[in-house]
Amino acid sequence: MTSKAIFYHAGCPVCVAAEQNLARALDPGRYQVEVVHLGEQKHRLAEAEAAGVKSVPALVLDGAAFHINFGADLAALK
Amino acid sequence: MTSKAIFYHAGCPVCVAAEQNLARALDPGRYQVEVVHLGEQKHRLAEAEAAGVKSVPALVLDGAAFHINFGADLAALK
Repeated sequence: MTSKAIFYHAGCPVCVAAEQNLARALDPGRYQVEVVHLGEQKHRLAEAEAAGVKSVPALVLDGAAFHINFGADLAALK
Repeated sequence: MTSKAIFYHAGCPVCVAAEQNLARALDPGRYQVEVVHLGEQKHRLAEAEAAGVKSVPALVLDGAAFHINFGADLAALK
């Protein structure tokens, strides 16, 4: 059974590199990765904040938020 | 053929969470993860800096450095 990993980003260069390298490096046997562009899907900002996301890119894995290489603050996307 | 991923840390709580969740979530079929404690293996600080690491925890994957949840600046380990 796979668990869900959510990769939140906003399309910035830092985000794209983190997605193409890190998010895609997760074990597909254990994780199903959903990619969410918060610049385009603003209705999911609250969900990201509730998961502990403060900046993008961020990967939420097993309920924990991992901020990667500081791309942009979530406040900048509101 | 697997490629090497190196997880640099310094034993701080942020580091341990990132290691146990993120570093261990990589696909073992594609990545072999080496864990390096820079507080104990100071001789590998230069190697980490050369790979682009500025703070720990950080994961170096396919030649790119991904800083995770800012734990400590590399300068603090010197």
